[in-house]
Amino acid sequence: MTRNIKLIIAYDGTDFCGWQRQDNERTVQGVIEEALKKMHGKEVNLTGSGRTDSGVHAAGQAANFYTDIDSIPACRFVHALNSLLPHDIRVIESSETHNDFHARFSAKSRLYRYQFLCKPCGIILPHENRFNLKLHHYPRVDLLNSYGRLLLGETDCSIFSAAGDTSKSKNRYVYSASFYYEKETLIFEIRANAFLRSMVRSAAGTFLHYEEKDTSPKALREIIASGDRSSAGPTLPPQGLFLWKVDY
Amino acid sequence: MTRNIKLIIAYDGTDFCGWQRQDNERTVQGVIEEALKKMHGKEVNLTGSGRTDSGVHAAGQAANFYTDIDSIPACRFVHALNSLLPHDIRVIESSETHNDFHARFSAKSRLYRYQFLCKPCGIILPHENRFNLKLHHYPRVDLLNSYGRLLLGETDCSIFSAAGDTSKSKNRYVYSASFYYEKETLIFEIRANAFLRSMVRSAAGTFLHYEEKDTSPKALREIIASGDRSSAGPTLPPQGLFLWKVDY
Repeated sequence: MTRNIKLIIAYDGTDFCGWQRQDNERTVQGVIEEALKKMHGKEVNLTGSGRTDSGVHAAGQAANFYTDIDSIPACRFVHALNSLLPHDIRVIESSETHNDFHARFSAKSRLYRYQFLCKPCGIILPHENRFNLKLHHYPRVDLLNSYGRLLLGETDCSIFSAAGDTSKSKNRYVYSASFYYEKETLIFEIRANAFLRSMVRSAAGTFLHYEEKDTSPKALREIIASGDRSSAGPTLPPQGLFLWKVDY
Repeated sequence: MTRNIKLIIAYDGTDFCGWQRQDNERTVQGVIEEALKKMHGKEVNLTGSGRTDSGVHAAGQAANFYTDIDSIPACRFVHALNSLLPHDIRVIESSETHNDFHARFSAKSRLYRYQFLCKPCGIILPHENRFNLKLHHYPRVDLLNSYGRLLLGETDCSIFSAAGDTSKSKNRYVYSASFYYEKETLIFEIRANAFLRSMVRSAAGTFLHYEEKDTSPKALREIIASGDRSSAGPTLPPQGLFLWKVDY
């Protein structure tokens, strides 16, 4: 009997060329599919909730695959897979789900979390560097949160799109976009039905850029509405960014 | 003119065979001496405050070297070296010090910090795994701190020594040894004039072992006094352990 198995997966994205399988590159999907192949003795396709870019981490990526192995209870795929996976990928949950479940198309929203370590005078240390981006000042969360609110609801996110993005619509439904501090770490969390490629990195870069220029939320609203990519801030590097959770 | 330059250095120990230079192994001292050689056009010896074991991290290792380069202000060795170093080593401070300063012999005390992530039901995630050891329960800090107090003052640390340790005296002067929680993370900090090889990992393993057995501090005092290595707990793995600070 074929079962549809849903996985929750965490990874340290540093040494991966992103999620999506590619020839001759180490990718998360590729490495897990290798493990599934060893387990099944044949190719098994793994469907993720979405691609993460090269270097982006995950604390709660979701994925599913179909198995005809009867001897492993659904919840035991955690251990069966982890014993075959390298330490920068860990399966944290496995469960059986209904046959129509599709990790990408069934997803209602994705939550990303970006971690910025504020060190006005110091050097970011190796153990901080891997999972945080460094900032040279303490941005004002009030102003940043007033920017975040501009995205709520259905929003044309063209300004945050990457060069060559061929998505038909650049509208996305944003449920929340907020900033807060955990000690010296500024956290940006954004939840939306879906994201354009590198959209979180561009949105964060844009907000931080205009915060430094003390731009009013009203002015930023017009900039975002213009859809002009050249007025977006920099697309920030991936370290510090996590796909945090996928909701179904 | 020759100047004596003191460095404060942080590193992610994961991909190093410890501090001490070894032929054909990637070590922290070896990699920094390579950078110093490039800068000086000749071999330069770097003296560390002490060796850290393979896999142990540092947030504040101290070291010194003598330079005859006149053109770099002492504080600028930070940037000069970091531009030549891989990202898992960062020099965070550089300063000129008196000629007799010796990073090892001048050190008054070393502070180590061990981070344990308590996850009774969960799997440790890749971004947590690199800098924390996992525990399956929440140890009681009161009991652990009563153990830590047993070490204060001049203490025979034989029980925590590694096999084949040839140190003449196994007495060390312990200034503090305490446990506390930061959210789900149990922190063990221990400061002493000096440490036996792998002593922190053995002491932490011993304390956690006897905490689980609910051993009284009085009983543990006798076990420590026995000097019998076979009654020590396990020497814990190095991830999670940092050489945190060296005092002069």
